[in-house]
Amino acid sequence: MYLAENFRRIVKLRGMQAEVITIGDEILIGQTVDTNSAWIAEQLNLIGVSIYQITSIADTREHILEALETASKRSDLVILTGGLGPTRDDITKVTLCEFFDTELEMNEEVLAKITDYFERRKKKMLDSNVQQAMLPRGAEVILNVRGTASGMWFEKDSTVFISMPGVPYEMKGLMRDELLNKISQHFDRPAIYHKTILTLGIGESFLVEKVKDWENSLDEANVKIAYLPSPGRVKVRLSAYGDRIEALEKRVEAKAEEFEKLAAEWIYGTNGDLLEEVVGDLLRESSSTLAVAESCTGGMVSHMITSVAGSSDYFKGSIVTYANEVKTGQLGVSEQSLKDHGAVSQPVVEEMAMGVKKALKSDYGLATSGIAGPTGGTPEKPVGTIWIAVATPGGVVSKCLHLGNSRSRNIEVTAFQVLDLLRRELLVAGGS
Amino acid sequence: MYLAENFRRIVKLRGMQAEVITIGDEILIGQTVDTNSAWIAEQLNLIGVSIYQITSIADTREHILEALETASKRSDLVILTGGLGPTRDDITKVTLCEFFDTELEMNEEVLAKITDYFERRKKKMLDSNVQQAMLPRGAEVILNVRGTASGMWFEKDSTVFISMPGVPYEMKGLMRDELLNKISQHFDRPAIYHKTILTLGIGESFLVEKVKDWENSLDEANVKIAYLPSPGRVKVRLSAYGDRIEALEKRVEAKAEEFEKLAAEWIYGTNGDLLEEVVGDLLRESSSTLAVAESCTGGMVSHMITSVAGSSDYFKGSIVTYANEVKTGQLGVSEQSLKDHGAVSQPVVEEMAMGVKKALKSDYGLATSGIAGPTGGTPEKPVGTIWIAVATPGGVVSKCLHLGNSRSRNIEVTAFQVLDLLRRELLVAGGS
Repeated sequence: MYLAENFRRIVKLRGMQAEVITIGDEILIGQTVDTNSAWIAEQLNLIGVSIYQITSIADTREHILEALETASKRSDLVILTGGLGPTRDDITKVTLCEFFDTELEMNEEVLAKITDYFERRKKKMLDSNVQQAMLPRGAEVILNVRGTASGMWFEKDSTVFISMPGVPYEMKGLMRDELLNKISQHFDRPAIYHKTILTLGIGESFLVEKVKDWENSLDEANVKIAYLPSPGRVKVRLSAYGDRIEALEKRVEAKAEEFEKLAAEWIYGTNGDLLEEVVGDLLRESSSTLAVAESCTGGMVSHMITSVAGSSDYFKGSIVTYANEVKTGQLGVSEQSLKDHGAVSQPVVEEMAMGVKKALKSDYGLATSGIAGPTGGTPEKPVGTIWIAVATPGGVVSKCLHLGNSRSRNIEVTAFQVLDLLRRELLVAGGS
Repeated sequence: MYLAENFRRIVKLRGMQAEVITIGDEILIGQTVDTNSAWIAEQLNLIGVSIYQITSIADTREHILEALETASKRSDLVILTGGLGPTRDDITKVTLCEFFDTELEMNEEVLAKITDYFERRKKKMLDSNVQQAMLPRGAEVILNVRGTASGMWFEKDSTVFISMPGVPYEMKGLMRDELLNKISQHFDRPAIYHKTILTLGIGESFLVEKVKDWENSLDEANVKIAYLPSPGRVKVRLSAYGDRIEALEKRVEAKAEEFEKLAAEWIYGTNGDLLEEVVGDLLRESSSTLAVAESCTGGMVSHMITSVAGSSDYFKGSIVTYANEVKTGQLGVSEQSLKDHGAVSQPVVEEMAMGVKKALKSDYGLATSGIAGPTGGTPEKPVGTIWIAVATPGGVVSKCLHLGNSRSRNIEVTAFQVLDLLRRELLVAGGS
């Protein structure tokens, strides 16, 4: 029932599909997390190309040939990343020649580009760099202005194969500058419409229970749903497939609107929204400024805020206070509060939020103080006990979180929770 | 030449191998980066199990069946993650029943565990949670103490299949608590020895050129090499496969020692070392404390330092100064320096490093100030112009970086560079 032949027929009925093959031992031995594939998948989905499979394989001739053969049987577009570096562990190019029955030849245009690349950087060009201008005859070369390994476009039978370097910055550049357009023009694609609603502060099971009846109505509307949990958050994705994008959009948006009413309390954004951008926009709209005092999150909240380009418009700075003397010296937390209640307490976290707001002369102040773990807990305050606070122009609010034993997870969940607490205060202040 | 049958024979000669199958549309539409597979691969490699392939597939019956069938033909161990949540987009369990020709039955032990899990958390148990105790008859159940989806161990012909939930924290718990041991005991494994040497501050091509002759000697020693670049860094991995782990270790370590002599200038660690841990250990050894002043890195340096458990032993805190008034107010940077040279300049970054050292009463002070981008550059100081400094008990050192246009890459490379500058100063101070 699940033999490859039958399977292929099922698949081909669905219309155009692509797959991604990532080449490199570093992924198979777990030294590198493959972030390229998710990015490629996201970009292709946006232009209506769905991804059938993502495969990570070894940097060996046999495995590359087998993966190309398998993918070409079922997909219209096969995207390869990796295996094009100047070092000797990379054998992709010669294997591509074998698969496409061609051979390497010097590409003068690419050689000129590489020479120029090194001249502009005032670096010596090496033999291995020159070798990167040797490319398979018959391939359409996609020039890489960010590095020395070229992109390549092959066609065989009715399948298109694209090979790109694995360095994310170079791969993304090639896709954005040229390939996404070229793919759009080459293929007839079915329409896909996705909408993702981002929630925070409610577990997956509880959310599902909350919207059960609504969820049962999705089949009739021909809308698919997926719940995507990550620490402290659940993304809800609605999708529809068909011919006319307008019809799909209408169906999905109608269902999304219903969901947004049911779960309004926990929603902070949609699609690619980042909580730190949502908060940044609210601060900018109200011409307010922000300062942050971090103990257990250790800089994560500031790092999130400042990852947003233009955050200097509203972010004044932060004070990371690991030592208690920094809490008193820089933030004006009272010795008495530290002595009476300990650093992880409501009085101290509120004093931190108010203190950083005052010290950095901002309108809002955030603070975190907790036991991130894995050690440092007591019976009274076990690992995962974390206080967060937001000082506003009118006062201060705070909240205690009871999290688990994972340090990295606790830091992440706390950063999201404190930014969400600020978001809620900004909405109240803005009258929404 | 590359037909599946031949291929399988080549593969089987290599000894035991495993593959990982990740189930879930969220990866194929690019909303989630698959970090589970890299972690699993790393853990399995450590116990001598090599990973042949990592495959991400859709949450559909047909695709799951096809992936199981394909993997079972060539691998001895197949690990599945994902597709076990309580929500309706998860159909893995019923599909496993189909593949193993069995059916779901209520597992009373698991039901009791789930009931207890909810009672301890004082949360209501839902229907969908009860359903998670329905498990395939014949599967060995691996109890999950961190969540409600159980792990499962199946054997069919000579292949072992393991199914686990996709939540990283739960999956890692199952592997660490039980599965890694169980896998070790079940299989005869060939020995693998890896050593990774971590370099910073030299590009891949230049490193390769530097060690060319040494690299040519690797074939004779039967040691494999791979270069793994990431922003600002290159990992060099040496590997050997065989019967006796002692012989492999000796061969690899001898070659690693030669490499370490050739590239000493750029090496900051080996294997799983993190730069923030290396620096932390040096600080602890010399009983020194650290404070950080961050402008363009916006909290990333502090976040890295405080991700290390126990960093409160040496880390006093940091001041993130986005606004110039925070640079003067909190760090004592002079108005005159800001006016004469601008915030992105050698005098200002050095004053920041010395200022934070003084303000937080630490032995060392780090500082970063630059134009992270994507906007904010001038002809004189283009985007990517970044100053870093380290104040030591005896003075201050600084360095100018010329990076590119990617904000996230600039933040990351700068954080690594300033921690490395500190590492070098600590080594000099320690007399190494």
